[in-house]
Amino acid sequence: MLASVGLNEFLNKTASSDPVPGGGSAAALSGATAAALTEMVAKLTVGKKKYVEVEEEMKAIAEKAASLREKLMKDIDRDADSFNEVMGAFKLPKETDEEKATRSKSIQEATKKAAEVPLEVAKDAFGMMEMIEAVVVKGNASAVTDGAVAAMMARTAVLSAIYNVKINLSSIKDEAFVADLTQQVKQLEEAAVAKEQVILGKVML
Amino acid sequence: MLASVGLNEFLNKTASSDPVPGGGSAAALSGATAAALTEMVAKLTVGKKKYVEVEEEMKAIAEKAASLREKLMKDIDRDADSFNEVMGAFKLPKETDEEKATRSKSIQEATKKAAEVPLEVAKDAFGMMEMIEAVVVKGNASAVTDGAVAAMMARTAVLSAIYNVKINLSSIKDEAFVADLTQQVKQLEEAAVAKEQVILGKVML
Repeated sequence: MLASVGLNEFLNKTASSDPVPGGGSAAALSGATAAALTEMVAKLTVGKKKYVEVEEEMKAIAEKAASLREKLMKDIDRDADSFNEVMGAFKLPKETDEEKATRSKSIQEATKKAAEVPLEVAKDAFGMMEMIEAVVVKGNASAVTDGAVAAMMARTAVLSAIYNVKINLSSIKDEAFVADLTQQVKQLEEAAVAKEQVILGKVML
Repeated sequence: MLASVGLNEFLNKTASSDPVPGGGSAAALSGATAAALTEMVAKLTVGKKKYVEVEEEMKAIAEKAASLREKLMKDIDRDADSFNEVMGAFKLPKETDEEKATRSKSIQEATKKAAEVPLEVAKDAFGMMEMIEAVVVKGNASAVTDGAVAAMMARTAVLSAIYNVKINLSSIKDEAFVADLTQQVKQLEEAAVAKEQVILGKVML
């Protein structure tokens, strides 16, 4: 589990000439960091007299952010694993026609999964932005920059994950699948870029 | 050293109601991740026949990215430490006039340092974007999305660090210092936003 290795070791593995962990895992880490910051701002708001009116909302956000963080931490590994599965499929034997067909099918299936994992990361990171806006607008004002950083990390998680969806889509033959995911990432991309600007526009500094 | 704790533990600490590590450390981590991805793309380019013409350039980039990563990993701690120093200064005694003056001076000095650490992070992360453009344009094309992710992580590192500069500037009384850093972060902010767009415009996907 990459989640349990040290920060230094994780980045050593990233920096190595092994293709994974790579940008897909980095996207998930960026999303998980955004979740952690969101949770912190919510927790710094709970229990403060000045913010008693949003106490329940902040408690709910802290809880939801914690569960999203856990999910995104797992995606760091899932992304690396799905890449390795694609590589594994490419190594299948291709002597006979039957082998060729099996190999080709395996490559296509593995590549679809390798597109679906970052799509999920993008959706989860985007889904967090509503909460981030809430902690920036209603949360403890002394932690507003942490909310701003969370917004930017979530945006970069969404866009980074989307690059990893697209690179996989480029080798998938199922046109309906490609059309569906292309449409989904286009919407997510536009929405994440716009939402980040909305949130940062609310950070008075 | 936060660099040696597990990813999970680092994010647990971030998510806790302790204000550090917070957005400043997250900015340094984002920069360090960008450096690791840049190094990886450079290494995936070295030793490949197709890229023999850029071999020396990629070796130099891998080396420079590695040293920037090491520096940014240290900044994860430096940012948290500088925040703690500001908090420590606020706790100094303030009974006598002399104590008040010493305390006030300590707060100002610690806050200046707390602004300078993220300014350095912003500069280092921005400085990396030139290398990122080189790996995206000239590096191994099969790792181009990793370069794109590095560009976005570097941009978010710069902008996140800048929020942490600004929040500290808001309580610094030395007007010349504030004017100088305000000017520097304004330029860095504009340059990082523009550079990310230039790099992403060169990623054909």
